[in-house]
Formats: sequence, C-alpha cells, structure tokens
Amino acid sequence: MLFADLGARVIKVERPGMGDDSRTFGPFLNGRSVYFDFINRGKESIALDLKNDADRRCFEALVRKADVVVENFRPGTIERLGYSYERLKEINSRLILASCTGFGQTGPMSRERAYDTVIQGLSGIMSMTGFPEGPATRVGTSVADLTAGLYCFGAISSALFARDKTGIGSRVDISMFDAMITLLEHGVMEYVATGRPLGRLGNRHPYIAPFDTFQANDTSFVICAGDDELFVSLCKAIGKPELAFDELFLTNEKRTLNQALLKKTLETVFSEHDSSYWIERIGKAGVPCGAIQNISEAVEHPQVRARNMIVESGGLRMPGNPIKISGFADPKDRAVAPRLDADGLRIRREFGA
Amino acid sequence: MLFADLGARVIKVERPGMGDDSRTFGPFLNGRSVYFDFINRGKESIALDLKNDADRRCFEALVRKADVVVENFRPGTIERLGYSYERLKEINSRLILASCTGFGQTGPMSRERAYDTVIQGLSGIMSMTGFPEGPATRVGTSVADLTAGLYCFGAISSALFARDKTGIGSRVDISMFDAMITLLEHGVMEYVATGRPLGRLGNRHPYIAPFDTFQANDTSFVICAGDDELFVSLCKAIGKPELAFDELFLTNEKRTLNQALLKKTLETVFSEHDSSYWIERIGKAGVPCGAIQNISEAVEHPQVRARNMIVESGGLRMPGNPIKISGFADPKDRAVAPRLDADGLRIRREFGA
Repeated sequence: MLFADLGARVIKVERPGMGDDSRTFGPFLNGRSVYFDFINRGKESIALDLKNDADRRCFEALVRKADVVVENFRPGTIERLGYSYERLKEINSRLILASCTGFGQTGPMSRERAYDTVIQGLSGIMSMTGFPEGPATRVGTSVADLTAGLYCFGAISSALFARDKTGIGSRVDISMFDAMITLLEHGVMEYVATGRPLGRLGNRHPYIAPFDTFQANDTSFVICAGDDELFVSLCKAIGKPELAFDELFLTNEKRTLNQALLKKTLETVFSEHDSSYWIERIGKAGVPCGAIQNISEAVEHPQVRARNMIVESGGLRMPGNPIKISGFADPKDRAVAPRLDADGLRIRREFGA
Repeated sequence: MLFADLGARVIKVERPGMGDDSRTFGPFLNGRSVYFDFINRGKESIALDLKNDADRRCFEALVRKADVVVENFRPGTIERLGYSYERLKEINSRLILASCTGFGQTGPMSRERAYDTVIQGLSGIMSMTGFPEGPATRVGTSVADLTAGLYCFGAISSALFARDKTGIGSRVDISMFDAMITLLEHGVMEYVATGRPLGRLGNRHPYIAPFDTFQANDTSFVICAGDDELFVSLCKAIGKPELAFDELFLTNEKRTLNQALLKKTLETVFSEHDSSYWIERIGKAGVPCGAIQNISEAVEHPQVRARNMIVESGGLRMPGNPIKISGFADPKDRAVAPRLDADGLRIRREFGA
C-alpha cells in the first residue's frame, strides 16, 4: 500500500477461488471487507495458481519485469513452489525478493506460525504495557504486524537505492519478532544497565516526571514536562509556583524518585476543574499536554484533516499516507482495492502469458 | 542509526556545550547515557553553533556534499536559522531535507510541542489499549517516536531512489501524529464501518476468537487460533475435541460473539496445568501460541540470538538491525556512539571549513 501510495504499480498475486485470506476479515461494510479495502487500495489483482504450468509462466513473466517481489509465506514455502531467491535471480538478476514473516528466514523458530499477539507476547512488549498491579497488556493494535511492514517498506526502498549503484538485486528478510525487539527501548536499556527487566509502569515515563496521565475532575489527560524549565512553567500555569521550589521536586531525578507524591499533589489541584480547563491553561504555558482522545475524536481532529490523514477510497474513509514528500501526489481520493482477479486478463495480455 | 547500520556515513550536528539533550537521559552505565548510546551507534559528531559565522560556513560545506539532512526542530526553527528548504536547495539541488516532528510542517497544531505520550493520547491508541473496565493505557514504549522514525527512514530511502531518476532532491515531512493515525487499524475500521469508536478490548482480537491471553495454573499465555481449522486443532490438542462441534463455537463469528464463554471454558481446562505444558501441547498441534515473556527472557531468547538481534557497541548490549539484506554486513560489534564533537576537527579539515 505504501508503495502504491508513492506511485508504484503494485500487482497483488492471489490464489484462485478465495484470494487473500483477509478478504474474509471483518468488519464488513456493504458486503466488502473494510480490513481488506484499507490495505489494498491502489493495487491490481491477478489470481494465479502457482501449481499450474500456464499460471507459472505468467508469474515468471511478471518476475522478469518486476523490481520487487514481496511475499509472506512461512519460510520454505516459496522454495517448495520452485521459486527460491536463487531461481528468481536467474529469471531477473535485478529483482529484490522481500520476505516478511513472523520469525525470519533463519534461526530455530524460523518455521513456526506467528500471529501478532504471539509476537507481542514473546517480544516482551506486553510485559511493559499496563499497570504494575494489573496484567500484561496487548498493545491495542497489531503493532508487530505493522512495524514489520514498515521495516519491510524501508528495507525495500534502501535495497532499490543500493541496486542503482550495484546493478544487482538482493534478498530482504524481515521478521515481526526482530522488529519488536527494536521497539523495546527503555525496557532493554534498563535491563542491560541493571540486569533487571523493567516491568509495567502504567502511563508514566520511567525516567522523567511529571510525564504521565493525570486525573482531572472529569477524565484523565496527559502532561509531558520533559525538563526543569517545563516543570517551572507547569507549576506557574496551575497556580502553584511554590511547587517548583519544593526540595522534593527540584530536579528531574528527584521528581522521578518522588513521582507518586508529585502525582498525588498535582491531582489534588486538578480535581478542581475539568481536563479541558487544564489542557488549555497548561498548553498556553508551552508545556506539552493533551486529551486522551477516542478514535472518533482522533479521526475527526482538525490537524488530521489538515494533513489529509483520512482519505477516501471507493466511498470508504481510511487512514492516508503519512509519507509527505514534495513532488509526490497526496490526493484525497484513492483508487479502490481490487476485486479478486480484477486485472487478471489485462495483465496476462500485457505480459504475453 | 538505521542508515548508519546500512553503511551510510552519518554526521550528527550538535550544539556546542551540551550537545544533544538525550546525552543527559537515563539510564546511565559507567557514566554514559545508555539511551544516547543505543540510538547513536556508528555516527560521527561535530558541534556547530548555527548562529556563528564560521560554524555556518562549515554547516553549509556539509550540506553541499550531503545526500540528506534530517532535522527535528519545531516547524519554523530552521527557517529562522536561515536554512529553509529553499535556501538549502540553492546550496545543493540534490539534497533531501527530512523533518520529523510531532504534528508536521502544516496544519493548525504544526507549531505545538509534542512528546510521545501527548501524541499517544491524541491519536486514540491509548483509548484502545487496556481493559474495558480499566483506564486508557499508554503503549509501554515510545511507539509514536519510533513509528515516526521508521516512516522517516522509509520516506528518505524512497526519496533517494526517486532522486536517481529525477536528479533533484526533495522535502520530506513526517509527523508523529500522522504516523500514529496509520497504526489504529481496527479502531478506524470499526469507526468507519459502524460510526462508533472501538474501545478497549483487553488482550483479545476484535473479530477473531480464540485470539487472546489465557490463564493457566501459573501464569497467562497467548493463543491465536485464526481460523476454523486451527480451532479444531486446538480443541484436539487440549483433549476437548467435542468443543469444536459445540453449536456456540462452530464458526469464527459465533466464537467471537461467545468469546467470554469460550474463554471461561478454555481457562477451566487450562487451570489443570501450567502455561509451559499448554504451550508445548498446543504448539505441537501447529496452533500459534506462546509465552508472555519479560524483557530478560525476550532479550536472551535463542531466536533473538540466532538473528543477531542483540549486538554490542562499546561493551554495551543493544538491539541490532532488523533490516537483513543480502550483501549488507550485519556484524555483532558496532561502532560506539560518539562523544560530543569527537570528529569535529577532522570533519572541519575534510570539508575545508
């Protein structure tokens, strides 16, 4: 989808009959999978049976002219189909073959099946998400799927750039598990620095305070006072300038050490007004803060609108392209996701197969 | 860091005196910021005061030869320093100027300050993370920072590839808020399909069951039975083949509708053994499942080791590079993050400034 958004021609090769599994994933709208339509805009579709000789010739004709083949079979599957990287390279030496899998092409777990939550569990991110007194918590979106896809996009783009110098293609191997290890951030930092795993901290930052959610008299909101100066501004903005001179809160180190007391002190003040009152006051003082929005508030937000981050495709609203590059189009309307084999006949003719 | 990992020469331009703020971020080990060292491996450092004429000449000499300038000032700041994209383009028409900010270069919130948790709150991801009866929950890592960085990496790589065709550079504009909107997935799907925001679902999938965490007699573990076939395999593996024929659980739609009852039924079975027993049994049956590991278990995992996903830099262990491309080195040891201005003298000489 990202490549199609940037103007690449993307041909989705699906199995005949059912097509991509995700055509059957909910939610549905007017009989179409919203899930499928979200992530397949701007693509063409051809149904190919890679065990049928005529269809194999067509696939090979596509490979001959392609810059990139992306696949996410379990490791070993494309090899069994007779399309190892070595074989594809014989067909097209400039080809980039990118594989995006749960565990990668190598290692003891390489051939295990993986879904997003399995990887979230193994990666440690669930052990860091949630509250100290509560259970390990899944990130509320398929962050392992999505991050692996993002790495894959960047890796392919880099491989294309490299190919312009070397003249030959390459093999890209991205794994969801690898990708999640790189997202753990303070979790790994704390572990290598102290030998102890960092557990769940709720909504607060491990090393900065106040950098957390705070309860006002209606709902919670976010304050991120990342340094001493911002803390002084915060104290003034809420009418408690003396807090900034309290021995217990003088430095970020002290505030982090005494964060529970600081939070209680601040929430006593915040209980006097609702969150929108505090967000306006604190924001005006230049201290980063904000509401905890639900999805409808986020999607309808003026900044999201101004950035064209909700686009339309076949009458369906969906997230836009966050990659804004001068000279690349960023239209409001996007080509709709294809029906199965919608472009099959035309593609077969075009590639003479 | 990703570009340095792929072999690019990366020169970090820092303000004299303090350098990058993140040099002061905890945790610390042997007097060095682990935070800074994690994300600056393989870079060179030069301290430049962009308000000093000699230093400006040096900066411009760097720009003249650079492929890419990456900056994350608030919008308006580089323009005030006299280095708008238009000006930089005059110095080097092939330059790619990439800006990575909280809200992007345009829109009503463009100039607001943002930290990760502010963006998490605004984006809606916190409203989707956590349990229905519990509070909105921060993803336990700086997912907005990191995702924006990943989009920036991919966007720059794409812009470099495009430049090989057009001969001219471009302006890349990435925002944390935009990036997070693209991660909301089922949240936005459900909202556009039904008009209602999707709330917090705990650890379960909104449209697939069983796809959740389950309590064994010691701890919780993950099962992702993504289709009917996997559900049948699961029922057999746990010695309850009759469950697969229960009218209430016959299809994924029914299992999702009755997921609370299904979870209770499964957990009654799981209470008889510990999670490792069940993970082995269920995994052997080919059903995706796994432990909820803490950070030390994740970091020390054999698959992580086999994929070289923990590397060393200056004696410090840190996450490796998940971008595995044939022909690109993926060494165990990485060059250490630079001291402030460590390469300043040499760079000034080299660029004749």
